[in-house]
Amino acid sequence: MRILILGGDGYLGWPTAMYLSRRGHTVAALDNFSKRRWEKELRVAPLEPVLPLHERAQLWTKVTGREIRTLQVDLCDYPAVEEVMREFSPEAIVHYGEQPSAPFSMIDQRRTVLTQNNNITGTLNILWALRKHAPECHLVKLGTMGEYGTPNIDIEEGFIEIEHNGRKDVVPYPKQPGSFYHLSKVHDSHNILFACRAWKLRSTDLNQGIVYGIETDETAHAEGLGTSFHYDEIFGTALNRFCVQAVAGIPLTVYGKGKQKRGFLNIRDTLRCIELALLHPPEAGEYRVFNQFTEIFSILELAELVKRQGEKLGFTVEIQRLQNPRVEAEEHYYNARHQKLVDLGLRPNLLSDVLIDSMLVRIRERAGRIRTESILPRVCWDHVRPSSENPQGDGARDGRRVATRAKADAVPAGRA
Amino acid sequence: MRILILGGDGYLGWPTAMYLSRRGHTVAALDNFSKRRWEKELRVAPLEPVLPLHERAQLWTKVTGREIRTLQVDLCDYPAVEEVMREFSPEAIVHYGEQPSAPFSMIDQRRTVLTQNNNITGTLNILWALRKHAPECHLVKLGTMGEYGTPNIDIEEGFIEIEHNGRKDVVPYPKQPGSFYHLSKVHDSHNILFACRAWKLRSTDLNQGIVYGIETDETAHAEGLGTSFHYDEIFGTALNRFCVQAVAGIPLTVYGKGKQKRGFLNIRDTLRCIELALLHPPEAGEYRVFNQFTEIFSILELAELVKRQGEKLGFTVEIQRLQNPRVEAEEHYYNARHQKLVDLGLRPNLLSDVLIDSMLVRIRERAGRIRTESILPRVCWDHVRPSSENPQGDGARDGRRVATRAKADAVPAGRA
Repeated sequence: MRILILGGDGYLGWPTAMYLSRRGHTVAALDNFSKRRWEKELRVAPLEPVLPLHERAQLWTKVTGREIRTLQVDLCDYPAVEEVMREFSPEAIVHYGEQPSAPFSMIDQRRTVLTQNNNITGTLNILWALRKHAPECHLVKLGTMGEYGTPNIDIEEGFIEIEHNGRKDVVPYPKQPGSFYHLSKVHDSHNILFACRAWKLRSTDLNQGIVYGIETDETAHAEGLGTSFHYDEIFGTALNRFCVQAVAGIPLTVYGKGKQKRGFLNIRDTLRCIELALLHPPEAGEYRVFNQFTEIFSILELAELVKRQGEKLGFTVEIQRLQNPRVEAEEHYYNARHQKLVDLGLRPNLLSDVLIDSMLVRIRERAGRIRTESILPRVCWDHVRPSSENPQGDGARDGRRVATRAKADAVPAGRA
Repeated sequence: MRILILGGDGYLGWPTAMYLSRRGHTVAALDNFSKRRWEKELRVAPLEPVLPLHERAQLWTKVTGREIRTLQVDLCDYPAVEEVMREFSPEAIVHYGEQPSAPFSMIDQRRTVLTQNNNITGTLNILWALRKHAPECHLVKLGTMGEYGTPNIDIEEGFIEIEHNGRKDVVPYPKQPGSFYHLSKVHDSHNILFACRAWKLRSTDLNQGIVYGIETDETAHAEGLGTSFHYDEIFGTALNRFCVQAVAGIPLTVYGKGKQKRGFLNIRDTLRCIELALLHPPEAGEYRVFNQFTEIFSILELAELVKRQGEKLGFTVEIQRLQNPRVEAEEHYYNARHQKLVDLGLRPNLLSDVLIDSMLVRIRERAGRIRTESILPRVCWDHVRPSSENPQGDGARDGRRVATRAKADAVPAGRA
């Protein structure tokens, strides 16, 4: 299959490109490298240095004999998107090519607008280019479980049957996303659903849980094939961050009560889910949604798992509750369906002590690179802390308190 | 009350500005005049010439002694939006300031992206500026009943209680909009709901039906105070267009079976609804939705009403069914709640023979200006007809058939 990976330089995009290449598909990895620019802007960095995409692709060819084509394209540049569709003529697209961070989208007006314009325009451009140049192509779009929010009823996979005043209908599941980033994904979903109906395109929308893990079979293939592993406030996610905190000897930071429940999955399962979606494409005109996660944990449960494993390895691990920088329910019902990928053949890699153990060991090897100052939350949903670019900030209703708190918690890097 | 009208040069914006000014409010009308530019680009024009906004405001002062301040600002220009918030410091905002046409949004990739970027960015900028400079201000946002689509269950006002697997919750009503324009309004609604929750802003989202009518008490106050009345394919709406077709002696064009049911309201009721929302603001943090229409008709029923009245006035009126350029259900259940504005005091001006009669008479006085060639639909949802700018088109899978049909139906202007 000719598969185009959008966001091919990212945490999941690059491992997906290798995974599919290894299984014999013709793969192109496209990126505009804006996330690398945002990292510099916000003074955060992945735990391990990440080689440029084209170098990783060369290395991949060297060690496997297989080719991954790389393309530098901005999805907001419509003529360039059209050219890719015409030239590469993909049978499937895996679309990770978006600004991926909730805190990033909440920093200021500019990042809110950037996030939504970038994500929405990119996806609209893909839809128009598909319609014109590749209407049979299967668009696999990455969304997030965060689109649903935390309703007091079971979360279904994309659609729900409602009985209301004696009549019934199956309608899109109501979404209650919790940041301008999550909102951008909800907007995408609505746009894609419409395009499938109006233009007979076909798409799988994957509402993905929080991904953890640092390694796949392919990243482990050779030094230099690693992916972009973040633990910072902006691009890091819960479990990955906790493992880094445990190694760095700073408290695991749980936001609020920590009773927020979320769906999680191993990075290896992400790749398998993508493959399963690709191998079982929808019909023309069909828009379908899979909830892509394997287990539900509360944030506190995760922190406790990491603490237990960390202590076995000899780290001193504390759990600290921070005032929640997000606006979200801290105690809530959470039961989300995730059956469709299992029905297609997913056999989950469940979170095990072994996995956490191996993550901690790997992170320990890179402990010298941990920048603890980038971990504590400075972006607050309902007020803005002075950013590093703009130390005085503006509209920082509550900046001082947060700054003070962050300072009090900070621990010198490399203490582990 | 200090009230800022966004899109103050438009069909509804200008009458709203006068209506509120006349009732003693301090009113500013803001516009970037992009709709006037789009009209030229697409070669359509309102039935009556519309004086520049500042001239209408001067005339308003001359005849009433009241002032309407005018501002030329692009809502996508964030510093300019901030400046308006700081300087005018509104207590309420009435937000019509968006690209308002579904067919416009479906013309091509550029107009799809323009519509969503323009509408979403403008609204996000307002939200950020409100948060920073006027967090108490009441944002009255114009949405549309078209956001809901035509589900097989009753349409509620913004939220619905769902009982599912033995549990209950009240959630945002699932939306199934039918164009990239309607989608932009759905995106706005999700963004505003989130901002109200996260930042304790307050907003009323008005899901408005299709507005008809040409005159309000204020536009009738003096020659030159008229509003921008469209009957063309792009900016015109059903009933207004039918009245113009009846006068022009060309068939009333019903799309498909004509059994599509929609909510309608008189332009005078729009103004009263806005006033009612303003006089009864929501609490801080509250996001509420009113369905703003007064009657439900099928498109065919409307055409028949106009035909009957037109024939009484001596016009020869035919009804013609066109192949539907839109992708929509042509027969469907439709029952939409519209109680909340009535509870606040709305006494509807229902569609009467008298109203249609007076519209026809007024349009007859301007019959020489009707451009019949701008009425027939050329923008098709699932294919693209060559546009006037690009006569050969591209990707015009089905262009020839539509062009031929439009030609066969065309009638020389001024035949009435």
